[in-house]
Amino acid sequence: MRSRSKMALPVQTNMKHLFRFIQKLTSPKRLFSAGACPENKLSPGCGRVFSGIQPTGVPHLGNYLGALENWVALQDQYPSVLYSIVDMHSITQPQDPNQLRSNIMDMAASLLACGIDPERAVLFQQSQVSEHAELSWILGCLTSMPRLRHLPQWKMKSKQRNEGSVGLYTYPVLQAADILLYKSTHVPVGEDQVQHLELAQDLARIFNNRYGDLFPEPRALLSSTRKVKSLRDPSAKMSKSDPQAMATITITDSPDDIALKIRRAVTDFTSEVTFDPETRPGVSNLVTIHAAMAMITVEEALCQARGLDTGAYKQLVTEAVIQRLNPIREEIERLRNDRDHLEKVLVQGTHRARELAAPVLREVRQRVGFC
Amino acid sequence: MRSRSKMALPVQTNMKHLFRFIQKLTSPKRLFSAGACPENKLSPGCGRVFSGIQPTGVPHLGNYLGALENWVALQDQYPSVLYSIVDMHSITQPQDPNQLRSNIMDMAASLLACGIDPERAVLFQQSQVSEHAELSWILGCLTSMPRLRHLPQWKMKSKQRNEGSVGLYTYPVLQAADILLYKSTHVPVGEDQVQHLELAQDLARIFNNRYGDLFPEPRALLSSTRKVKSLRDPSAKMSKSDPQAMATITITDSPDDIALKIRRAVTDFTSEVTFDPETRPGVSNLVTIHAAMAMITVEEALCQARGLDTGAYKQLVTEAVIQRLNPIREEIERLRNDRDHLEKVLVQGTHRARELAAPVLREVRQRVGFC
Repeated sequence: MRSRSKMALPVQTNMKHLFRFIQKLTSPKRLFSAGACPENKLSPGCGRVFSGIQPTGVPHLGNYLGALENWVALQDQYPSVLYSIVDMHSITQPQDPNQLRSNIMDMAASLLACGIDPERAVLFQQSQVSEHAELSWILGCLTSMPRLRHLPQWKMKSKQRNEGSVGLYTYPVLQAADILLYKSTHVPVGEDQVQHLELAQDLARIFNNRYGDLFPEPRALLSSTRKVKSLRDPSAKMSKSDPQAMATITITDSPDDIALKIRRAVTDFTSEVTFDPETRPGVSNLVTIHAAMAMITVEEALCQARGLDTGAYKQLVTEAVIQRLNPIREEIERLRNDRDHLEKVLVQGTHRARELAAPVLREVRQRVGFC
Repeated sequence: MRSRSKMALPVQTNMKHLFRFIQKLTSPKRLFSAGACPENKLSPGCGRVFSGIQPTGVPHLGNYLGALENWVALQDQYPSVLYSIVDMHSITQPQDPNQLRSNIMDMAASLLACGIDPERAVLFQQSQVSEHAELSWILGCLTSMPRLRHLPQWKMKSKQRNEGSVGLYTYPVLQAADILLYKSTHVPVGEDQVQHLELAQDLARIFNNRYGDLFPEPRALLSSTRKVKSLRDPSAKMSKSDPQAMATITITDSPDDIALKIRRAVTDFTSEVTFDPETRPGVSNLVTIHAAMAMITVEEALCQARGLDTGAYKQLVTEAVIQRLNPIREEIERLRNDRDHLEKVLVQGTHRARELAAPVLREVRQRVGFC
């Protein structure tokens, strides 16, 4: 309860951001195909949102601004919202079991602290709902092998390690099962996930064609193009796995850490603050972070920067980041010490997810001929 | 109850066959690795047998003599025996849902009629135990993609159709999950399945190495090399999918059908009955069938054939087949009309399978770090 009232303010003020939120459909064809939702009611008040996040532990600023802030906002926009900690996806790469366990709880605490409200959103752990794996098997029998060969997940990660598991290859099929299992209509995705969502759309269509209409074709909710870059190399995305600790702000960083990381952030030899991501990626990244954290436009941020050199501007950015992350960090710390509450929230979420998943899978099994 | 007492005689007389049953281990290395079973108690009285059969409807004589007869015998040999109708495997090829549904019930009726005793064997439908799909996902994350490329299932069936689904490719991983989920120690397999079992053995080892000992490495119980050939082309295996109806005897064929098919069976221009599968495959196939159905040795069969030409011998074979299949056919007919009983048996089997599977999967999840 305390967590909800504490987060009420950010959730309210996030409403300002909703109008900057780009809802983009991947192709005109997709516009006419969402089964569950009348066309004139496509956005607010109708439909079901599903999204998943891998339990990588505490999110960083890029996760927060790129996805989680939107997740919070979507709770006000859609009557049914499901967010899953997708631990079955995370084992497609080797994981230390103890680390994974603690990452799952840290991710749950972080999501709650960022404003995910378990009364409005179903927050649950993927591996606790057996229907995901079951539907994934069935959808895998409708997916041709070559269809997965060029999808980003496999192309990137199998190359990095010069090999890949069956789990990594079939990852997008499980992702499609995650989405379709709840007859989801809208899926917030980053640009790198659009092709994976297209597989889910294709599988909905293939299943519907073969066994009769059941799944709506889920639509992409492309989040804003606001991308947070590494503080040490502003040509790269901010990333959890960055070997340079100074490159990434996690949402549990202390005020001192935040101040230090921003002070050390790579800029250039021009002291004036301008926004030009192409030629001045470093300082532009700071403007992006400032605007996003202070919930103002880039123009307003530049206005506040007038007359400041980059050194002085970094202090302004630092204050905005600390002000926004402080209550989140405190709430995460509180929740980490209240493991019972975290577990209760996840168990409740699992229960509600199952209530939605079970009748859909029952119907799928019936149509496939299993019963 | 009626079905069991009816089948008591064949089950008893099958004991004679047990001593011809070849228990062969695929490599000496495998000999020292079954975790659950002390070496000196490897065969009777110890261990758990698992096997699966796709619901192709009513089995034919090749299925009966190649696998099911052994399945019945194993009930007397091992204290714990599980037989699964693997419907999740069958959808790796396109299936008509109504046909699949009726094939599942026909397979259940056939297994019971052939002597599978639901009090001694856990007879269940794979898709009703969600743990199979769940463990399959986890094992898929431990399987490298190239590992599956040369396995028989994929090589044969993807070529036949010039394409293949993700389900077909990952079929052996689900098979490994089927086996390991029950910590099975012994798996009756045909020669064409040995490589698939080796994958299950490898996955048991990989899991145990990474997460600590949990799974015994399951051993192959290679069934006798007795292979029933097509009656129309004795160079090919008897097969359900043979386009020539006269090539295959199903276990529900009427006495007239059986007599006709054997009368039309391809032999050669020598009238004497001999056993030489290389040079006289047609007549040798009849000898194989005769010996197996009358539960005598090939030598005894040849002794009975002395002085008969192939035409007269065919009558002898026909009688042996009819005598053996008649009670099975009648029992299948009875069970087909008692759908409630069939469903009850399968529900009971599902329940017992889950009782065994749930704690194993719980342990797996714990070790992987899901909880």
